[in-house]
Amino acid sequence: MELWFTEYYTENVKFSIKVDKHLKSIQSDFQKIDIFQTPEFGKILVIDGYLMLTERDEFIYHEMIAHVPMAVAPIKNILVIGAGDGGTVRELTKYHHIERIDMVEIDKMVVDVCMEFIPQTSCRLKDKRVNLYFEDGLKFVKTKENEYDLIIVDSTDPIGPGAELFTLEFYENCFRALKDKGILVNQHESPYYKGDAEAMQNAHRKLKKVFPIAKVYQAHIPTYSSGHWLFGFASKKYDPVLDLKEESWNSLHLETYYYNTELHKGAFAIPNYVKKLLEES
Amino acid sequence: MELWFTEYYTENVKFSIKVDKHLKSIQSDFQKIDIFQTPEFGKILVIDGYLMLTERDEFIYHEMIAHVPMAVAPIKNILVIGAGDGGTVRELTKYHHIERIDMVEIDKMVVDVCMEFIPQTSCRLKDKRVNLYFEDGLKFVKTKENEYDLIIVDSTDPIGPGAELFTLEFYENCFRALKDKGILVNQHESPYYKGDAEAMQNAHRKLKKVFPIAKVYQAHIPTYSSGHWLFGFASKKYDPVLDLKEESWNSLHLETYYYNTELHKGAFAIPNYVKKLLEES
Repeated sequence: MELWFTEYYTENVKFSIKVDKHLKSIQSDFQKIDIFQTPEFGKILVIDGYLMLTERDEFIYHEMIAHVPMAVAPIKNILVIGAGDGGTVRELTKYHHIERIDMVEIDKMVVDVCMEFIPQTSCRLKDKRVNLYFEDGLKFVKTKENEYDLIIVDSTDPIGPGAELFTLEFYENCFRALKDKGILVNQHESPYYKGDAEAMQNAHRKLKKVFPIAKVYQAHIPTYSSGHWLFGFASKKYDPVLDLKEESWNSLHLETYYYNTELHKGAFAIPNYVKKLLEES
Repeated sequence: MELWFTEYYTENVKFSIKVDKHLKSIQSDFQKIDIFQTPEFGKILVIDGYLMLTERDEFIYHEMIAHVPMAVAPIKNILVIGAGDGGTVRELTKYHHIERIDMVEIDKMVVDVCMEFIPQTSCRLKDKRVNLYFEDGLKFVKTKENEYDLIIVDSTDPIGPGAELFTLEFYENCFRALKDKGILVNQHESPYYKGDAEAMQNAHRKLKKVFPIAKVYQAHIPTYSSGHWLFGFASKKYDPVLDLKEESWNSLHLETYYYNTELHKGAFAIPNYVKKLLEES
């Protein structure tokens, strides 16, 4: 018998991963959560049928969402929204100068399942600087003003509980919750397949309305749709490339498997067809 | 009834494309050639079961293999090896200052099939500067000395007839066929899945032995294994980034959908894990 997990990128394209064992399947109040053991990627986390992470390539996503803003600005107080698997927090806790990480995940079950099955990403959620809130991210951020240097929106796709994290109202609240030099980084979908590209345009259109600086950067993530994944860098003051503190970041000697400061600059050099989609958004 | 084309990236990962119609299937002296009509990607070319190109994303590969060297050096005489679909030649013929393009494709049937079914890529093969040779690339290049400014190796994977285009002997012959400031660019496989990564290391190890400058650059190609595809830039004199003629290239006002000179520089900023694989090669 062969067992395969399949994700449809569109109705005409699919990506399939061979499965050894279905380790966990649970329906939370918000979504369906599955963990599979696979020969190629180690354990994989699937939410509502969409692949969220694999043990083998999660480093790419988590390094790129965390280290890009950290290399640009002096950041001490951070709000992380979503990110239930813990990978983003794992990367952030590598910085000794970070004082506080508030992490707001709507679905406690995602955290519980990842704590049990994926210690590779959830290993630093008990760092004493991390405060876990199991609440609605949109409501949480509404109550904050001038409080964070950085907000990372590490959400699922803009369907289900992740949808509100792609609204204008949410970005406006984030702007208010940030200090006067604050930065927002978010997962920004992919430019290639139609549905993803529309989500990318939608996010960019709104971020541009709210933040004076709104850029997009890219990474190669083999297990995400098209392999070409984007992140948004929206900011009140800092430019992600001009303000990169290259020497300072390299002097920290952090071990990274994807990110480096040359790649940081390169990641903001996006293809013409993506530029055009963003301009038209 | 549903018809799907499936490519296995490893025995545990597969990528599938829905097919409307199997337009052509032919066994040449060298390989099996198939053309399918698909709803997502237009027509696709498959050789020996491996996806070679889709009409929808071929621009990425062809722009990146052609424009990167062209933006670095004054190039008039070019040898293209492989490239039977014509896409590389299409990009090269956009440069009026190119005087001669010798194209050596071992399998005339690939060219014939692409001329019939994929005019999008084969449209410029009749440009008067293009000389088509249906010969063995390794043998052809052996007869040349100090003749070309640029050699582009646009080969299939290093199995079947493409294998000899990844040998040390071939690269040595290319070195001899190039003028004293010559450049070789080749498709360089992918860093992610094991078999691809080994082919990448193998190519890099040999190129480093032959050329004083041997760099690797990357592109996002959604329909190639992992989506993270590499090209090699090996050269006798020019550095692909330090010698980039940005203003001069931009003054040509060529229309490109992926390539731009900012992206050119960014493409050489590769992830740490890929750097490590190349260093260990």
